Amino acid sequence: MQNIQQVIDKAVEQAKHTSEGQIASYIPELANVPADITAAAIILNDGQRFVAGDFDYVVTLQSVAKLIVLIGLLEEFGKQKVFSWVKAEPSGDDFASVARLDQFGPKPSNPMLNAGAIALCGHIPGANPTEQINWLKKWTENLFGEQLTINQKVYESERQTGHRNRSLAYLLKANGIIEGDVEDVLEVYFALCSFEANIKQAAYLPMLLANRGLIPHGQRIMSKQTVQQVVAIMATCGLYNESGGHLVRTGMPAKSGVSGLIVSVALGQAGVAVLSPRVNRKGNSMRGELILEYISQHLDWHFAN
Amino acid sequence: MQNIQQVIDKAVEQAKHTSEGQIASYIPELANVPADITAAAIILNDGQRFVAGDFDYVVTLQSVAKLIVLIGLLEEFGKQKVFSWVKAEPSGDDFASVARLDQFGPKPSNPMLNAGAIALCGHIPGANPTEQINWLKKWTENLFGEQLTINQKVYESERQTGHRNRSLAYLLKANGIIEGDVEDVLEVYFALCSFEANIKQAAYLPMLLANRGLIPHGQRIMSKQTVQQVVAIMATCGLYNESGGHLVRTGMPAKSGVSGLIVSVALGQAGVAVLSPRVNRKGNSMRGELILEYISQHLDWHFAN
Amino acid sequence: MQNIQQVIDKAVEQAKHTSEGQIASYIPELANVPADITAAAIILNDGQRFVAGDFDYVVTLQSVAKLIVLIGLLEEFGKQKVFSWVKAEPSGDDFASVARLDQFGPKPSNPMLNAGAIALCGHIPGANPTEQINWLKKWTENLFGEQLTINQKVYESERQTGHRNRSLAYLLKANGIIEGDVEDVLEVYFALCSFEANIKQAAYLPMLLANRGLIPHGQRIMSKQTVQQVVAIMATCGLYNESGGHLVRTGMPAKSGVSGLIVSVALGQAGVAVLSPRVNRKGNSMRGELILEYISQHLDWHFAN
Amino acid sequence: MQNIQQVIDKAVEQAKHTSEGQIASYIPELANVPADITAAAIILNDGQRFVAGDFDYVVTLQSVAKLIVLIGLLEEFGKQKVFSWVKAEPSGDDFASVARLDQFGPKPSNPMLNAGAIALCGHIPGANPTEQINWLKKWTENLFGEQLTINQKVYESERQTGHRNRSLAYLLKANGIIEGDVEDVLEVYFALCSFEANIKQAAYLPMLLANRGLIPHGQRIMSKQTVQQVVAIMATCGLYNESGGHLVRTGMPAKSGVSGLIVSVALGQAGVAVLSPRVNRKGNSMRGELILEYISQHLDWHFAN
Repeated sequence: MQNIQQVIDKAVEQAKHTSEGQIASYIPELANVPADITAAAIILNDGQRFVAGDFDYVVTLQSVAKLIVLIGLLEEFGKQKVFSWVKAEPSGDDFASVARLDQFGPKPSNPMLNAGAIALCGHIPGANPTEQINWLKKWTENLFGEQLTINQKVYESERQTGHRNRSLAYLLKANGIIEGDVEDVLEVYFALCSFEANIKQAAYLPMLLANRGLIPHGQRIMSKQTVQQVVAIMATCGLYNESGGHLVRTGMPAKSGVSGLIVSVALGQAGVAVLSPRVNRKGNSMRGELILEYISQHLDWHFAN
Repeated sequence: MQNIQQVIDKAVEQAKHTSEGQIASYIPELANVPADITAAAIILNDGQRFVAGDFDYVVTLQSVAKLIVLIGLLEEFGKQKVFSWVKAEPSGDDFASVARLDQFGPKPSNPMLNAGAIALCGHIPGANPTEQINWLKKWTENLFGEQLTINQKVYESERQTGHRNRSLAYLLKANGIIEGDVEDVLEVYFALCSFEANIKQAAYLPMLLANRGLIPHGQRIMSKQTVQQVVAIMATCGLYNESGGHLVRTGMPAKSGVSGLIVSVALGQAGVAVLSPRVNRKGNSMRGELILEYISQHLDWHFAN
Repeated sequence: MQNIQQVIDKAVEQAKHTSEGQIASYIPELANVPADITAAAIILNDGQRFVAGDFDYVVTLQSVAKLIVLIGLLEEFGKQKVFSWVKAEPSGDDFASVARLDQFGPKPSNPMLNAGAIALCGHIPGANPTEQINWLKKWTENLFGEQLTINQKVYESERQTGHRNRSLAYLLKANGIIEGDVEDVLEVYFALCSFEANIKQAAYLPMLLANRGLIPHGQRIMSKQTVQQVVAIMATCGLYNESGGHLVRTGMPAKSGVSGLIVSVALGQAGVAVLSPRVNRKGNSMRGELILEYISQHLDWHFAN
Repeated sequence: MQNIQQVIDKAVEQAKHTSEGQIASYIPELANVPADITAAAIILNDGQRFVAGDFDYVVTLQSVAKLIVLIGLLEEFGKQKVFSWVKAEPSGDDFASVARLDQFGPKPSNPMLNAGAIALCGHIPGANPTEQINWLKKWTENLFGEQLTINQKVYESERQTGHRNRSLAYLLKANGIIEGDVEDVLEVYFALCSFEANIKQAAYLPMLLANRGLIPHGQRIMSKQTVQQVVAIMATCGLYNESGGHLVRTGMPAKSGVSGLIVSVALGQAGVAVLSPRVNRKGNSMRGELILEYISQHLDWHFAN
């Protein structure tokens, strides 16, 4: 497995040649991250791990965490219910487009967009935000092998500045998609975005998906059906309006977050996590994409290989 | 392989229980097809064939033919060139949306939409439409194992009534995406849509993709890179603004046409073609989708299985 | 002036022949109004009044009240300031379109739309909503000749159900158009919509505009510049995406509200108010429009007469 | 009337201080005009004429000519018919927006937009384009006091490069709004845009409108109803998505063309024509607007004065 280590090292190294993209600053706390950290981690389906670059750096999951609520709800409520709350279509628009929701709603286009994830947060079991956040914590334990913690500074920052998400949430409320209290739903959503991890931790979730829902040599965390549905959604919607180009280039269904994290599934092979906070205007890590493309090509991990 | 025959028979049978959807009538000639023909064909990667229903019925490929120009150009010009002419992003809009092209252009969103395929037709080698149509014929021979013929009645019907496609084409011209004569490009595009086949023939192309570009036990028809790019585009864009739901339900990247044909790739396994002219408002065969979903579930052919 | 009374009586009578349109129900309290009340009032520039139909019925001004904040701010801050907060262009979209604001913003298209009026409410002088609502009350006194009161039931109903307006407001906040607390701004906006009047009272404001800002035989309430700007905005934007048709049909710049009220300016002649709660999908009173068209034709009050 | 001459001289002089805007170049022939010519003409309702600047310069009417087909058809077919072919609503979008037509159609939003004028050209009486163009010539004689000629170079240039207009026209055809041959309709439309005049000639048409359809001290050219409808449409739609701001600033309903010409109606007073080929991104003459604003303020010609 020398080979994988070499590939991941090279991938990180060559990605550093680009300095395109900028740290997301619309959530003030997000801006407090060194622009040039760059890292990658691979966990093979058999449990072997490979890391390169600044792999210890901890960031908030941001939109990567949308996978948590989607998987949890699919497991507990099933496909029928979940897709009565949200569609599963790529939107062709920006990740936080209110225009899209207003024109093509009332149901959000897919659960990888802000509107879709907010709508799903309204369906998390629990009598109040605290119970619902505990449900999310439990699911982070299932999906990352250990419970993730919430970065309180980022959480507060999101709550104070997340006005576009509020706009989406009130539009969902106006259209009857959110039934309960909007601020309660947003509290849960902002907590969701604020879970934090380093990329070694982050690569665990895509590994579970690559391994058809199983812990390496171990128990089942989620059903095969859930894996299929989630991977299909990542394939078509995971990088917003760059999902198509990403799948052509890498063939590894993925989910990105504005913190610069991307988790990606090499089907039957491995989970991959990459990190570099320089994101483009569509919210995707520029270096991260270069690393994934390099890995896919050199390890032949395109899903249609 | 008894099993596959049973599955395909049952799939066709149960699909007949729905009578939703209507024959596309915007091209008058398309409406002259019995509404209730229903058929499916599977060609395994080893060459074995299975058919069910009205498998001999011949229809025009319509948008399924967009794969021909995409594959041909990728093989002859490469990814770099082709993706300088068209993007590879799901659009979130209707297959012939002029609004989408005007707002998100000038490059068409992807080659599975009318705008994208028209743009690509402008780049087919040849000094005139006749030469370019011959280039397409040659590629049908590569991709279907035998040269397909053009249905002249449908071709004439498209030329006379394809005003929305003309609107798209002139917008592409206005934006500098089409460089040559618009009517010449449209002549080629309408010919492309008018190639005809039965589903036994139609299943050959997706089988080639499922088999990584190789004829069963035989020669290479297209490169692995082309296969990967085409399958990724089918996965994200093949059924227009139902591509996401399709991939979740079936996991078999596909391309649909308004004649009611869908070709679908069971990666590593088989090519599948289904036919039923009752299409929904998004241009996809209703029974066809039910058949594909049944096959995927019963043969476990989801790409993330 | 026999003639005017006859015209207004006939106008109301013939309008009753249509039963198109429905009472707006998205604010629950609005639905508690008899569907068939129909009324009209005219105040000539010299102060003479004419009424017909159910002229005593009191309704909330709803969007008609947008004129109050616009006029008040133009008078106190001037054109330069006000049009740095909001544009003055017809939007071509629905009165509460979030899509429009997201695509064509950040500045709202005009002050006759919900987004525009909400943005202006953020600039009303006052340290808190109570002071700002008092400022509005003072301006109702100027513009209606007597202070209007707020319908508390409607006010509460708007606050509880105005989620689409919240969505607009948070989008304005996200884009930096609202600087203060969003809920404070909305409290003022909902109060604004909840001022109530009968049509005799309501016709006073358009009479002031028709009379170039002067009380009949009396003092100046607003400058000629404000009159010109407000009437021009009513002409192009007063009935949302029916403003054009309205101006063609009547030539009397107007402002409508979903309570079924329309106030309209017969330049140099009179103010007109009409009421019928049956509104169409664009939020405009169906009978109200018929009455205005009848009056304009029979009294020759088109501005380009 | 010394005063008017002084105002118009000053208006032209001060407008020359701005050099914003650029000559429209999308029709190649349009670009062959000196960028800095600047002129204004006023014809009072009594026939007196005032000119300033480069008043002899001849330009094509471009979109100003849309008034010709609108007035002619209103006179010959009446309001009912004409507004069954086109709406009369400001669109909020660009003058040649295909997206707008696709989303808000099938009827074009108004006759001042390209789509609307193209649709109307399909209804001009005549067995072929030559007869229809002759109908237009006859109407130029009515509306400008002398027959205008077509600039053949511009006409050819439009025909060769008007691909966006072709896109609009084929979309109208696809939607059943154009019934005849699209290229025939476009031939007429391009001829319409290519009529040419200097501003002394151009000011005649708005003078007719200002004078309620009458030649000074003379015969009626169009009905009062037509005047009212046309002026109302100019007020709401005449400068595309700047119509609102224009009306607020000047109160003189107008129609602009990309050649830099604007004709404007001072109701009850005069017709005004201004010219400066530096147009902004919305297709309106920058200096032209400054001249109109100056004239309106200094002669007190706002319609709500």
